[in-house]
This record gives sequence, structure tokens and C-alpha cells, in this order.
Amino acid sequence: MSEYRQDPISRQWVIIGTERAGRPCEFAEPVFLRRAVACSFCAGNEAETPPPIATYENPANPAQWLVRVVPNKYPALLPAKAAPRDTQFFSEAAVDHPLPGVGSHEVIIESPRHVASLSELTEAESELTFRAYRDRLRTHFASGQSQYVQIFKNVGPTAGASLEHAHSQLIALPGIPDVAARQLAIAKEHYSQTRRSLFVGLIERELRLGERMVAQSERFVAFCPYASRFGYEVWFAPRQHRPRYENAQDGELGELSSLMRQLVLCLERTTGQPAYNFYLYTSPARDGDDFFHWHFQIIPRLSKIAGFEWSTGCFINPYPPEACAAELRAAIGSLNQ
Amino acid sequence: MSEYRQDPISRQWVIIGTERAGRPCEFAEPVFLRRAVACSFCAGNEAETPPPIATYENPANPAQWLVRVVPNKYPALLPAKAAPRDTQFFSEAAVDHPLPGVGSHEVIIESPRHVASLSELTEAESELTFRAYRDRLRTHFASGQSQYVQIFKNVGPTAGASLEHAHSQLIALPGIPDVAARQLAIAKEHYSQTRRSLFVGLIERELRLGERMVAQSERFVAFCPYASRFGYEVWFAPRQHRPRYENAQDGELGELSSLMRQLVLCLERTTGQPAYNFYLYTSPARDGDDFFHWHFQIIPRLSKIAGFEWSTGCFINPYPPEACAAELRAAIGSLNQ
Repeated sequence: MSEYRQDPISRQWVIIGTERAGRPCEFAEPVFLRRAVACSFCAGNEAETPPPIATYENPANPAQWLVRVVPNKYPALLPAKAAPRDTQFFSEAAVDHPLPGVGSHEVIIESPRHVASLSELTEAESELTFRAYRDRLRTHFASGQSQYVQIFKNVGPTAGASLEHAHSQLIALPGIPDVAARQLAIAKEHYSQTRRSLFVGLIERELRLGERMVAQSERFVAFCPYASRFGYEVWFAPRQHRPRYENAQDGELGELSSLMRQLVLCLERTTGQPAYNFYLYTSPARDGDDFFHWHFQIIPRLSKIAGFEWSTGCFINPYPPEACAAELRAAIGSLNQ
Repeated sequence: MSEYRQDPISRQWVIIGTERAGRPCEFAEPVFLRRAVACSFCAGNEAETPPPIATYENPANPAQWLVRVVPNKYPALLPAKAAPRDTQFFSEAAVDHPLPGVGSHEVIIESPRHVASLSELTEAESELTFRAYRDRLRTHFASGQSQYVQIFKNVGPTAGASLEHAHSQLIALPGIPDVAARQLAIAKEHYSQTRRSLFVGLIERELRLGERMVAQSERFVAFCPYASRFGYEVWFAPRQHRPRYENAQDGELGELSSLMRQLVLCLERTTGQPAYNFYLYTSPARDGDDFFHWHFQIIPRLSKIAGFEWSTGCFINPYPPEACAAELRAAIGSLNQ
């Protein structure tokens, strides 16, 4: 079976090609050796990171932190000295006319203990991590310096992590980057034609069909997207129209955190592979309220990105999302028995 | 130093952020172990591949092949039973309305010997490989079944190779994929405004500036692009307006092959890293003649693609292309001494 599928929210094409799954590989899975370095994210080594931007204490023991937000010691971007430009920041620029690399680059340390994955966090650590995302979004948008905030997580060296200790990163940008801008434009066009949210319509359809659904709770759903680029790719979103993650209420964050941890645990068990990325799409500072929908995308890094994917932007995925969702549903089901 | 740069041919943004280069990594370079499998691409094992589509013999010994083109045994796409649709193939398609996975997926085996990289090919093997690209493009476009042909090469498991033996792949598509379509639209817009080729103008500028030039010959140039996504990324192109690789003449292919081999050898020596991808952009079947410019992009796989790159489409590159080009120029210079 081989077919082209177009993703409704990005309009990108993928090839679901099951013939590829059987091909031989001369190379075994890579072995990453750990260097003997002390972990600067562990409790006791707080002096090795820059002073914290925010600290979340253990409710049961206020002397102990559970989550810390610190500036990235090796930032991709540097804070602006002057006020940044407006939403037109990423408009066209000529060769040899770069724009200054302004922005903020933060690290969210998710536990005082040396654990690697979201699935190893305690319920309190995980919930405070998702709360830290919300609080940092609020602060960056309130500052007026950031047009867009990208939150992302790299787990395992295959997924681009350079440090093992569980952490997320946040990069606040003076303009809206390419992928989010494209999603916004598509969602806006759909809304202007139908007065409906594209993503909410998608969720309703997936709930009706059922074959790509993975998990659900009162307020949230998780499903394998129709045009999955990666095997076992999962999207996680609120059921109702919610354009801004920063508007999430404390009461919702526990439910979110609990379902996300189950999901990641089942992904790890099902794929036998702990390397993954996840990242949050949410509305930019000044657009999206009527039509955008915040959501997480989780991509297990089972396959390498090779020349065809780089050159065309079209991913070849040998794992049909319907089959992946069935496996993940079964894993979630046995967790909850 | 940190700055945003926009690529002129794709309009994609990158962050050149040299602060990132110093960050520690707990993980050593991955170790890929080879499985003990016989190589089906080596001379003597011809029966293990499907019958060849084309064979290029050793001019000095016609009984021996140097390059073979065979159908991919594990194809991402399958040949069309009926005539495919026209250039509108990749227009919009609704969820759960996939298009049939029609196309051709071929492998170009570049040597009868078990070598891995372009730099290990003989001059004759390399030149015949670049000739095979041209001949296959001609055949696919003449068939009327393909709108676009993507040729690409994965060297090393980090770059997505599953087999070690030197080979390229070709995927012929019934429509124009996203990345090429975007480049075409940008080049067409530039041409309609200026009556000049965007890429030829870019080459003239790079030759004038010199700081990102890597190598040149009578007909070809190689340079590190201004908005390099990867450290030591190199683009290779003809100096004059050439929209179609399939129009390359036999006399040019030797010059092309020789410069490309030098380039890859110097990339390997300079970066100490043999994993790379390269891929060819050339005009689609029925567009591009006035304004498109064929070129190869070569990307050494020095850094992983992590959550930020996935989620934004914006690459963080800690290696400024001006510094990379200086190193590569020096390496090319010492080769030719």
C-alpha cells in the first residue's frame, strides 16, 4: 500500500508507504555513550546554571524546588537592547542584511532528580512543568517584546538532546516563524470561509471516525494525525475552541499532565524507543483568537530524516497512523485496567 | 554573535548563533554497528536486485559494469497503472481522500566495489553516476508520467542511509513537491519583475564578495549559502543560466564530477564526519526554463534536528558559513598543490 495524504492544518503532503517497512538495514540502532560529566540540572548544582527566572516549590516541602526556569547558558538568541519591531519582523530581507538575533532562550528543568523522560516525572513535577509553560507564555506576551513563543522538548540524543536530565526549552521570538505562520494563515482562511475552527472540526471528525483516536479525557483528546510524518506521531489538544495555552486554568493542568504522561509512557512501551520531541503550537501575541487551536505534537524519532525528506518537504512514513493508533489505544487501555 | 538570515531562494529564515557552538553534550558521537549481511549491490550479487533499468559499462572492459540503475526493491511509490493527472496532482485534498501512491523509485549503484562515499569512487564511476542522473531525468520526463524528479543521496547512517554501498536514489513524482514548488514560485516572481535569474544573480554576487566561495571551475561554482541551515552546507551550480540538469552535455559531466568529488573529500576531511546528504534541484517537466537554475545542495549531518527546528522550520546553525567556506577553501587549495 502506498498513498499520498495531505495534512489539513499545514497542507503538507506525506507518503504512507508500507513497502518501505520491510527494507533491510545494515546498521544497528546507534549506541550513544555518556560522557562522565556532572549534571548541572540536578538538585545541589543550582550554582552551575544562571540565576532562576522562576522556581516552583514542592507543595509538601517549600524548601525543595520541583521545577526551575533558567536562562539558557548557551542561547541561540540574545535579549533585545531596544524594543523589537512588530509582527513584520520576518518580512523579506536581502542577502547580507541579517536581522539582529534578538529573543529569549530559556530552559525549564522539570525535576530535581536525574530522570530523562516526562514519563519518569512525578505527577507534581509534571503538572508544574505544564504550569511553567503557561506562566512563561503569559510573561513573554505581557512584556510586549515577543510575537511568538515556541516551547519544545528533546528527549534522547537521537531527538537532539545534548543533556539527559528532563528539561524543556522555550524560545521567544520577535516575529512568527514559518511553520506557525503557515498554520495560522490556513486556519484563518478556513475560519473566514466557514466561521468554524479548522482544528475543532478535525477533532470532531476524528472522534466520529475513531480509528486514529488514542486517548481522551473530559477536556482533552489525543490522536494519530491522518497525514502523520512519523510512525506513532500523536497530536494532543483540548476538545473545545482554545486558541491560547496561556489561558489554561490550574484545574485543567492536572488533567492535561496526567493524560500526557500516560501517552508518553505508552509511546515508549509500544515503540521500544525513548527518543522523542514534543512541541506546542499556540496563538501568537496578537492573532489567532477566533480560529487558532493550541495543541502539542509528539514525534517519536524512529526513523532518520534522509535526502528525500530534506529535498522535498514530503515525509515517507512506513507506519500507517490507523495501525499506530490501534496499538497505542491498546497500550493505554492496559495501563488503565 | 547571533543573527537571523533569510535565504533568497526559499525565503526561509535561519539563526546563525555562535554561542550555541560551545554548549556541552553529555553524549558522545553515536556508534553504529554493522550487521553481518552480504551486500546486494556488490559485483557478483546482481541477482539480488531486480533486473537493471540501465547499465553503464567500464569503457576499458565492457564485460564489467561500473554503474547500474535498478528499481528500488522496497519502493515508497509504485508505478501508475493509468496515466497520472497533470501538474495539479498536489492540489488540495480532503482528510481521508488520499491520492494513489504513484511514482517511480530507483536506485543508482555507483560502483561494483564496496565503497561508501562519492569521494571513494573512481573518476569513471563518479562521472557515469552523474551521467546516469541525466539519462534517467531524460527518460522520466520523456515518458510523460512524471512532473518532477527528485535525485538524492544518503551517505552514512546518521544521514538516513540503510545500506553502506555507495548509491543514490531517484523518486519520480506525478506532481511538484512543496520545497521545489516554493523555489519555483520565488524564482518565477523574481524573473517576472527583473527578467533575470535569481540564482545566477546570487552566484555573481557570491563571486564578487568571495567570502563564501569554496571552489570553482570553468563552468561550475561551489559556495556556502548565506543562510546555511547546517554547518559546512555547500551549494554546487553551473555559472551560466541552466534550468535543466538533463541538458548537461557529456563534456561537462567530467568537470562536474571532478569538482564534486574534490568538494566531498574536503568536506569529509574538514568536518571529520563522513555522513552527508546531497540532492539535486532541477526544473520540473513543464516549467522553469526561463528562470530556474539546477543545483546540488550538500549537507553534512553534523548536528541533530531537534524540537525547535521541527516546530518552527527555522534552523539554528552555530557555524557561520563565512568561516566554513574559509576552511573548505583552504582544504581545496591544499588538495590542488
